[in-house]
Amino acid sequence: MSGVLTVIGLGPGAADLITPAATRALAEATDLIGYGPYLDRIPEIRAGQNVHASDNRVELDRARHALTLAASGRRVAVVSGGDPGVFAMAAAVFEAIEKGEPSWRDLDVRVEPGVTAMLAAAASVGAPLGGDFCAISLSDNLKSWSTIERRLKAAADADFVIALYNAASKARPHHLDHAFDFLRTLRGGEAVTLFVRAAGTAEAKVTITTLAEANARGADMRTLVIVGSSSTRLVDRSGRLPWVYTPRSEDT
Amino acid sequence: MSGVLTVIGLGPGAADLITPAATRALAEATDLIGYGPYLDRIPEIRAGQNVHASDNRVELDRARHALTLAASGRRVAVVSGGDPGVFAMAAAVFEAIEKGEPSWRDLDVRVEPGVTAMLAAAASVGAPLGGDFCAISLSDNLKSWSTIERRLKAAADADFVIALYNAASKARPHHLDHAFDFLRTLRGGEAVTLFVRAAGTAEAKVTITTLAEANARGADMRTLVIVGSSSTRLVDRSGRLPWVYTPRSEDT
Repeated sequence: MSGVLTVIGLGPGAADLITPAATRALAEATDLIGYGPYLDRIPEIRAGQNVHASDNRVELDRARHALTLAASGRRVAVVSGGDPGVFAMAAAVFEAIEKGEPSWRDLDVRVEPGVTAMLAAAASVGAPLGGDFCAISLSDNLKSWSTIERRLKAAADADFVIALYNAASKARPHHLDHAFDFLRTLRGGEAVTLFVRAAGTAEAKVTITTLAEANARGADMRTLVIVGSSSTRLVDRSGRLPWVYTPRSEDT
Repeated sequence: MSGVLTVIGLGPGAADLITPAATRALAEATDLIGYGPYLDRIPEIRAGQNVHASDNRVELDRARHALTLAASGRRVAVVSGGDPGVFAMAAAVFEAIEKGEPSWRDLDVRVEPGVTAMLAAAASVGAPLGGDFCAISLSDNLKSWSTIERRLKAAADADFVIALYNAASKARPHHLDHAFDFLRTLRGGEAVTLFVRAAGTAEAKVTITTLAEANARGADMRTLVIVGSSSTRLVDRSGRLPWVYTPRSEDT
């Protein structure tokens, strides 16, 4: 089979955080497939490139569509925000291959990594991911809330910094407050807690608070939440937001 | 103070995985500071840029040197591999600020995110980070081995995919085997285990095995190790390495 499918990470939002490798893969594609707002972020679409916008909910359908096009000999780019391997399209593509046409396993499928949201969010405030950390999606479309709680508990027990993806959504307005409540019972209220909206874009907005004060009203669909470990700390500055970092050492 | 200090992530190795924002920040610097092999990866150094190479062990000294230069009015770029906020230079810079001259808090300090090693390693094999995951450094320069074990245990209990940074070193030749032994007692031997050497470069080399078979001999200083969750799986292909992915769902 001659078709190519590349799953591409567009990074957190700004054009200058898209890797040259991703830009080249986009330029080489005959067909671009993705959720509309991600397609809108592609800096340049060539005349003759076919653009296939889809709803965000139908990841597996989108993956199958992309694989069908690639199997017909097209060069297909599936676009994701951030990094495609982190709560994004890459896993859906390999799941579609596993469950789909045997011939899809012969396709040339590649993944182009990108800057995932937690890295851009962290960079915008300092270095809160400076120690060991975990990334948890609060979406229960595909896993149970009890699994999410089990992972939050483990993360709190081990004193990981926690990056929360899919922290807010219209479909689950109470999840984030449930997560904050649960973490407060495990870890107390002192942990530095960050809301970073639209990290890695010109409209980035940072809120620094504590777990005790954290409230889901601070987050929307574009917000990445980071709950610090017991050692995450602030470096105060006059007239500006403090920097936030997690020391590399336990004994700082 | 007019000085600027930017902590820059060069990504996993290939020039086309350096973001344009990082490239611009490198070009604007008057002074480039970093571990020699990272400085060697800068695609172009302008005539007149001052290059300060240092040993990898002295992160805090390097951070202080960079801050002193910035405080004298220079535009300083501190270069890291991968993302500077993940087991790299950004936390050392903020630690140096916190402990250092009060005037350093008035400097213009920025962090330019990059593609961290686990994202490039994951992309090279499929989507093994497709579910919830954690990142743990096996270096005990700055934390105790008991803390590392506590985090490995939590990660196993919660069925996270685990990315192991600093998996191998001459200073701690037995750490990685200790970690494998410990994880086997918690999780059994079936978990898909990946060794990805020089991910995101032309010399990338992937080994796919199981936790039962995993051995520290498979890793060197350039190797990122990923231990899958209970649901991480292989998609076999004829004549090539299988793809590896972690389904987004628990019920796949």
